[in-house]
Amino acid sequence: MKRQGRGKVDMDTIVSLCKRRGFIFQSSEIYGGLSSCWDYGPLGVELKRNIKDAWWRSVVQERDDIVGLDAAILMHPQTWVASGHVEGFVDPLVDCKGCQKRWRADDIKEGRCPSCGGELTEARLFNLMFKTFMGPVEDKAGLVYLRPETAQGIFVNFANVLNTTRKKLPFGIAQIGKAFRNEITPGNFTFRTREFEQMEIEFFVRPETAEEWFKYWVEERFNWYLKLGIKRDNLRLRQHTKQELAHYARDCYDIEYLFPMGWSELEGIADRGDFDLRQHSQFSGEELTYFDEETGEHIIPYVIEPSGGVDRATLAFLLDAYDEEPDNEGTRVVLRLHPSLAPIKVAVLPLSRNEALVPLSKELYADLRKSFMVQYDDAQSIGRRYRRQDEIGTPFCATIDFRSLEDNQVTIRERDTMRQIRVPIKELARTLQAKLGGEAFEVLPPGGSYWLGFEG
Amino acid sequence: MKRQGRGKVDMDTIVSLCKRRGFIFQSSEIYGGLSSCWDYGPLGVELKRNIKDAWWRSVVQERDDIVGLDAAILMHPQTWVASGHVEGFVDPLVDCKGCQKRWRADDIKEGRCPSCGGELTEARLFNLMFKTFMGPVEDKAGLVYLRPETAQGIFVNFANVLNTTRKKLPFGIAQIGKAFRNEITPGNFTFRTREFEQMEIEFFVRPETAEEWFKYWVEERFNWYLKLGIKRDNLRLRQHTKQELAHYARDCYDIEYLFPMGWSELEGIADRGDFDLRQHSQFSGEELTYFDEETGEHIIPYVIEPSGGVDRATLAFLLDAYDEEPDNEGTRVVLRLHPSLAPIKVAVLPLSRNEALVPLSKELYADLRKSFMVQYDDAQSIGRRYRRQDEIGTPFCATIDFRSLEDNQVTIRERDTMRQIRVPIKELARTLQAKLGGEAFEVLPPGGSYWLGFEG
Repeated sequence: MKRQGRGKVDMDTIVSLCKRRGFIFQSSEIYGGLSSCWDYGPLGVELKRNIKDAWWRSVVQERDDIVGLDAAILMHPQTWVASGHVEGFVDPLVDCKGCQKRWRADDIKEGRCPSCGGELTEARLFNLMFKTFMGPVEDKAGLVYLRPETAQGIFVNFANVLNTTRKKLPFGIAQIGKAFRNEITPGNFTFRTREFEQMEIEFFVRPETAEEWFKYWVEERFNWYLKLGIKRDNLRLRQHTKQELAHYARDCYDIEYLFPMGWSELEGIADRGDFDLRQHSQFSGEELTYFDEETGEHIIPYVIEPSGGVDRATLAFLLDAYDEEPDNEGTRVVLRLHPSLAPIKVAVLPLSRNEALVPLSKELYADLRKSFMVQYDDAQSIGRRYRRQDEIGTPFCATIDFRSLEDNQVTIRERDTMRQIRVPIKELARTLQAKLGGEAFEVLPPGGSYWLGFEG
Repeated sequence: MKRQGRGKVDMDTIVSLCKRRGFIFQSSEIYGGLSSCWDYGPLGVELKRNIKDAWWRSVVQERDDIVGLDAAILMHPQTWVASGHVEGFVDPLVDCKGCQKRWRADDIKEGRCPSCGGELTEARLFNLMFKTFMGPVEDKAGLVYLRPETAQGIFVNFANVLNTTRKKLPFGIAQIGKAFRNEITPGNFTFRTREFEQMEIEFFVRPETAEEWFKYWVEERFNWYLKLGIKRDNLRLRQHTKQELAHYARDCYDIEYLFPMGWSELEGIADRGDFDLRQHSQFSGEELTYFDEETGEHIIPYVIEPSGGVDRATLAFLLDAYDEEPDNEGTRVVLRLHPSLAPIKVAVLPLSRNEALVPLSKELYADLRKSFMVQYDDAQSIGRRYRRQDEIGTPFCATIDFRSLEDNQVTIRERDTMRQIRVPIKELARTLQAKLGGEAFEVLPPGGSYWLGFEG
C-alpha cells in the first residue's frame, strides 16, 4: 500500500537504520534471534524512555485527576478467570495431518495445509496467555499467567487506590508496563510482538457521563500524537463495528497510523462500561464501588480506557520522523523527531582533533551532560558528523572552532533548518534549554492544526 | 536483631505505612494475594521512578563511558545454557513422603519433615528459572525462560553495541528491567520476591585494569547510596568468601544495608572476568572481542558488574528515611527522603476551604504541576495536612492564606526543619526549583562523610 503524507519510508529502511545506529536489535541475535522479540539499543532505549516520560508527564504529572500505578506482571490466576481471558482469549488453530504444522484457522483459505497441501484437523481453541508455574511443583496449584494486558492490575487495585488517594469521580489510574501474548502470527518488526509494553489509563467516571468522557479521551489521545509531531495525514480514527467490539466494550475507537503495511492500530480507546469492576467484585467477593458522599449512593463507575502500545508508538515516531532530502553530498537523511523525544539533545563537535580545541570541547561536553543527553564526536569531517547526528534526530550540534578560543562563543547548528548561530559559551546551556523547551520547535501552532474533535 | 544508626523502624511499621498511604500493595489482594508479588501504588511508583531516574542519570547521562540498553525478558534459550543457568541455577529440594510437602534441603536441620515429622526423599535439583512455551505447541522447541537476570541481555548485545557506538575500552552498558526467579523461600516484604527489577551495569575493561576498575565501582556505587541520603551507619561492604563466589566471579563485594532482619544485600559488585563473553562466543560461534587499533590485538575484555535491585533500593530508602519525633500532637512521622527521590515535591495547601482562597490556590497548583509532582489538599486543619505530607516525604508545602491575597506571597514550609519562609508567588516555582536542586538539602558535605574507598 502506498503511503500518503510527506514522509514515505518502507519498513526495511527503518529496520536497517535501527540496527545500524543502535535503536533496535533483534533479540539474542548471536543465537539466530528469538522470533518477534527485540532489544532496544543505546539510542532506542533513550527514545522509548522519552516517549514514556512524555506520556507520564501529560497524563499523571500535569493532571489533577490521574495517579500512577505499577502492578506486577504475575497476578493471581483468578484475575484472568474474572476478566474473561481464561475462557475467551483464544485463537482457533488447525493442525496438518501430513506435516504436523499448526496454523491459525483464520489464515486458511483453501481448506488444506498451505505448506504441504495436507489434510487439516478440525479447529481447536488455543489460549494466547503464556503459562508458567510458581513454586517448585508444576501442578494446577502453581499455575500462573504472564499478564496479557496491564489493565487488570489497575482494576484489582481500584479499592486500594481509592482508599489511599481519596480521589473523587471522575479520576484515572495510569500504568506503563510489559505484557505478553503468545501470538500465532507476530510480525512487521516491533509492531506485533509477543512481549510488548503498554501505556494504559483506566479512567473511572459516573455512568451517565461515560459518553462525554469517551469523546474527551479520544480527542485527548489523538492530539497527544499530533503535539509530539506525528503528521496529521498519517493518523486517523476508526470506530469498531458492533461485530468487532470486544466482549467488555460498549464502544471503541482505534487511533490508527499509516504504517508501511497500511493503516494499523496505534492506540485503542474503549468504553468498558462497568464490566471489569463488576466481574472482579463478583469473583473476589469484595465490593468495588464508589461511595458518593452527596447522594449517599454506592455506584459502580464506568471505565474509559485509552490503551497505547509503547513499541508501536516508538515505531510510528521513527517512521514519521524519517526524511530524505537531496543535498550536495547526495542525500541527507534526517530523523525529524520532536526534540523532547530525540535520544540525544546536543552533539558537541570540535572542528577538528586539534589539541587546542579538545580541552574546551571536553569541558563543554562535561558541562552539558548535567542537563542533557549529549554525544561527543571528533571523528571525520564536520559535514559527516552533522549528517550522523541528523540521521539519529539530534536537534542541535554545538561546534567549537578556533574562533571559540578567542571570542568564547560556539556555533549552534539546527537539525531541521541547518541554520547556524553563534552563542556565548556561558549561555549555551540556557539557550539550548530554551530551544528544547519548544521555542524553536513549535511543531503545531496552538489551536491551529490540532484535531478539534467530534463537534469541531 | 537490633538496628544501629539513627533511624530505627521495624518492617511491620513500613509495610503498614506503605499500604495506608499507597506506596506498596500486595499483588491481587482482592483474591487473597499472590505470594511474594507486590504492586507499587500512586506514591510507590513515583518513588521507584525517581530512584531509577537518579541511577540512569548518574550512570548513563552524566558519564561519557556508559550507554543504555533495554533487552527483552524472553531470550533465546541457548543464552541460559551458555551462561550456566540451565545447569547451575538450582536449589536442592526434598519431598516429604508423608505429607508431600516440598522443602529446600538447606532448610532441613533435623532430617525429618518440619511440618509432619515424616521421612524425606533424597535431595534433587530444582531449577529456579521460570519456564514457559512460545508458539502454539508446548514442546521442547518452544521452551523459553523468563530471564533470571538482566545481565545476559547485555552480553549477547556486546558486539551490536560496540559496532553502533564505536566506544573504546573501558566502556559500560547499563540496563534497568524485570527479572524472575522461582525462589523457594521469598520473603521480608519486597526484599526477596519472585518478580523483581534490576539496575545493572556491565563495564568492559582491559584485563590488566580489572582490579583497579573493580575497586572504582565498589566505591562509586557505595557513594551513590550515601549521596541519596542513606545513613553511613546503615551501609557496609562485605567481600564474598572464596566458597561463596559464584562460578563466574573472580571477586565480589556486597553493599549491605541494615534491614530490620539484619544486614542484607542491596547491591553486588562482581569481577566476572571474561567468563560471559567467552561462553557466549563459544556457544554462538560469534567472535565477541574488542579490536585494539593501537596494538592490532583482538582482546576479550573483563567485566565489572555493579548489580542492584530496584525493589531493595526502594525498600532501603523508605526504611532509612523513616523517622518519628515527639511533638505537641503526639508523634510526628517524617519520611526524610532525599528531595530528588520524594514522590511529591510540593503540596499546595489553602489555609482553609474559604472561597476567597480556592481560586488562587488552584491556579498555583496548576502552574506548579508543569514543573513538579504536586498534591493539592484542603481537607482538615493545616496542622493535620502538614503531618500527612511529612509522612509521605514531601519536602515542601506552599500555604496560601488571606495575607496572600494582599501581598501576593505564600508560605513555604520545609519538611525537615519545619521552618517557614514567605516567598513572592511569582518566584515560587523558581525558589522551589533551586531548593530541590540541592541548595536546601545538601545531605552530605562534598568530600565530608563520603566513603573514601579502599585506600582512603
